[in-house]
Amino acid sequence: MTGEVSDPTATTGPVHIVGTGLLGTSIALALTARGVPVTLTDTSPSALALSRDLGAGSIAGPDDPPPALVVVAAPPDVTADLVAAELRSRPSAVVTDVASVKAIVLAELTGHAAADPELDLSRYIGSHPMAGRERSGAGAASADLFLGRPWVIAPHERTSAEAVLAMRNLVADLGAATVSMDPAEHDGAVAVVSHLPQLMASLTAARLVDAPEASLALAGQGLRDVTRIAASDPRLWSAILTGNAPAVLPVLRGVRTGLDELIASLGAAAEHGPLAPGAVSGISAVIGAGNEGVAKVPGKHGGTRKRYAEVSVLVPDEAGELGRLFSEVGEIGVNIEDFQMEHSPKQKVGMAIVSVVPTAAARLETALEERGWRVVVQ
Amino acid sequence: MTGEVSDPTATTGPVHIVGTGLLGTSIALALTARGVPVTLTDTSPSALALSRDLGAGSIAGPDDPPPALVVVAAPPDVTADLVAAELRSRPSAVVTDVASVKAIVLAELTGHAAADPELDLSRYIGSHPMAGRERSGAGAASADLFLGRPWVIAPHERTSAEAVLAMRNLVADLGAATVSMDPAEHDGAVAVVSHLPQLMASLTAARLVDAPEASLALAGQGLRDVTRIAASDPRLWSAILTGNAPAVLPVLRGVRTGLDELIASLGAAAEHGPLAPGAVSGISAVIGAGNEGVAKVPGKHGGTRKRYAEVSVLVPDEAGELGRLFSEVGEIGVNIEDFQMEHSPKQKVGMAIVSVVPTAAARLETALEERGWRVVVQ
Repeated sequence: MTGEVSDPTATTGPVHIVGTGLLGTSIALALTARGVPVTLTDTSPSALALSRDLGAGSIAGPDDPPPALVVVAAPPDVTADLVAAELRSRPSAVVTDVASVKAIVLAELTGHAAADPELDLSRYIGSHPMAGRERSGAGAASADLFLGRPWVIAPHERTSAEAVLAMRNLVADLGAATVSMDPAEHDGAVAVVSHLPQLMASLTAARLVDAPEASLALAGQGLRDVTRIAASDPRLWSAILTGNAPAVLPVLRGVRTGLDELIASLGAAAEHGPLAPGAVSGISAVIGAGNEGVAKVPGKHGGTRKRYAEVSVLVPDEAGELGRLFSEVGEIGVNIEDFQMEHSPKQKVGMAIVSVVPTAAARLETALEERGWRVVVQ
Repeated sequence: MTGEVSDPTATTGPVHIVGTGLLGTSIALALTARGVPVTLTDTSPSALALSRDLGAGSIAGPDDPPPALVVVAAPPDVTADLVAAELRSRPSAVVTDVASVKAIVLAELTGHAAADPELDLSRYIGSHPMAGRERSGAGAASADLFLGRPWVIAPHERTSAEAVLAMRNLVADLGAATVSMDPAEHDGAVAVVSHLPQLMASLTAARLVDAPEASLALAGQGLRDVTRIAASDPRLWSAILTGNAPAVLPVLRGVRTGLDELIASLGAAAEHGPLAPGAVSGISAVIGAGNEGVAKVPGKHGGTRKRYAEVSVLVPDEAGELGRLFSEVGEIGVNIEDFQMEHSPKQKVGMAIVSVVPTAAARLETALEERGWRVVVQ
């Protein structure tokens, strides 16, 4: 980034990280890069040493000054116990966790507090950064993992204003965007946008186990994309999904209803031929609903195309030509919201698809044509 | 492309393309680029004109010389009728089709031949290029669509050696790899590697229709990948799936068995807590089977990523900044092979992922950093 004139760090250290996997090490790397003192701990001495060696921070010891903030970055099924232990042993620290489920962690902590009135839950605030990779562990960590990603903070009714502020500062320092949700709302959201696609990818990939090699040799990008996240860790995902079962269950029941309709339509076609009553309409309804759903996904696929207008321009495949196009779009004074290049290595011309706000599209097309660009109307 | 020393064209023209959508126009573009005369026809005059304007070939007329090869590139439910018509009206041409289902097209043609003994099926050979995109129509076509992709040819028992040879030549000229299968074997293979992921993507995306916008704002790459192909055309896919119902049905029944097991495991966890008997093991089994299945998919995920190296650069979301980046990449003398923008609507900074030839990546990173860009190492 250019012009990093003023980029103050808001987080007050020291920060103590419990669990030096992908998320814990990534948080530690980003804070260390900002000069915040970071201490690390993990149940695995080798995972801990790897994180330290990557420059994430120093291994926690008895003489460390007390941390101002503790981040528990552990699987969801051990998170509540670790948070409770940290709240007890660090009486002045704000404690957060980054587990993928929030209601069950809070429920378990509330259970701890009912048994132990000394447990100060006002210093606890749950959170969940919407960032990850299909690779896990410190080796896959990156200080930039959270850049531009949403990070849910899920305060409960007893969370102190100080704890909320500490989390907002942490999220901002890591380049992420704070999204406030209550724990149940968070769990409902991730059931749909994260747990559903994980299970559908796994169910799809599971059908490949017995497929002949000759069939799999025909696989294309569609199958690869749908099954990519099926490579995820069964132990971690079992903990996530059992922890969020009440929210995931109705989503999967909705899938089963759609699947049953599809099986009925295909059954009719298999028995009575492709034009069997209800076959085409039933299948078309599922694909159509999928069209509607994918259009709601923000970002590159779907939402962008609805929100923005696309201007298609032919660009010679020569160094600098794309740069000239972008410079001239800037000179025309239109902001590029998204961009795709459609091109072929063998072709001498590619098609640049520039997404802009709909009100700017006609002006941009005219101005580009005046400057000699070939604008393609699709 | 470099070093095109000797690349003779095997296909004997003229080639007549019936249907100027994505596949028909892509085939026509590739053949035209090789100097093979191509004529075009389509039921939609505007689709036909667009294909011609893109340089795919000339619009077919009554004075054209008779074609040596006819390619029917139409939805599967009209393919057999079109193939029969072409076999009748072009008595010397080999006729192929590129429909995604093969057994039903052959069955319908066999029906035509039973009613009309003059119909010469020896000149017919079914085929199916394993290439496509979620966007359809001539506007999305590319001469390189088939490069490196498998292309199934499915001869039937009466197919002539001449027809097989014509197809092998066409496939080779388009840069694809011939895979011979009988029609039923083909249909079983695509049921698993193509029709299954399409339906799973659609079923997943259909669950998003009623999801709150705040939930969808948390979507990450996992959801985007699983649902990308859900943007596909309902009319085309209804025809494909009803045409392949007997092969798709058992695959979907397998999915339903897995889904029911998952629902039972999650139901136990929702009722009795995350450690309910069978909950963790049931979920873990599905994720584990997914691990096993995805490992069988040949090739790396993302063809582009294999061929090119990615350089990730942070770009402030201001008019002209992306243009400045592209200009400077041009000044540095590196050609951009592909480009993706990862960004969140609310963020002030996006991540530009520039694909370049691997040998240029390190030089580009260094040069961009010298110019003050923030290059992200992932």
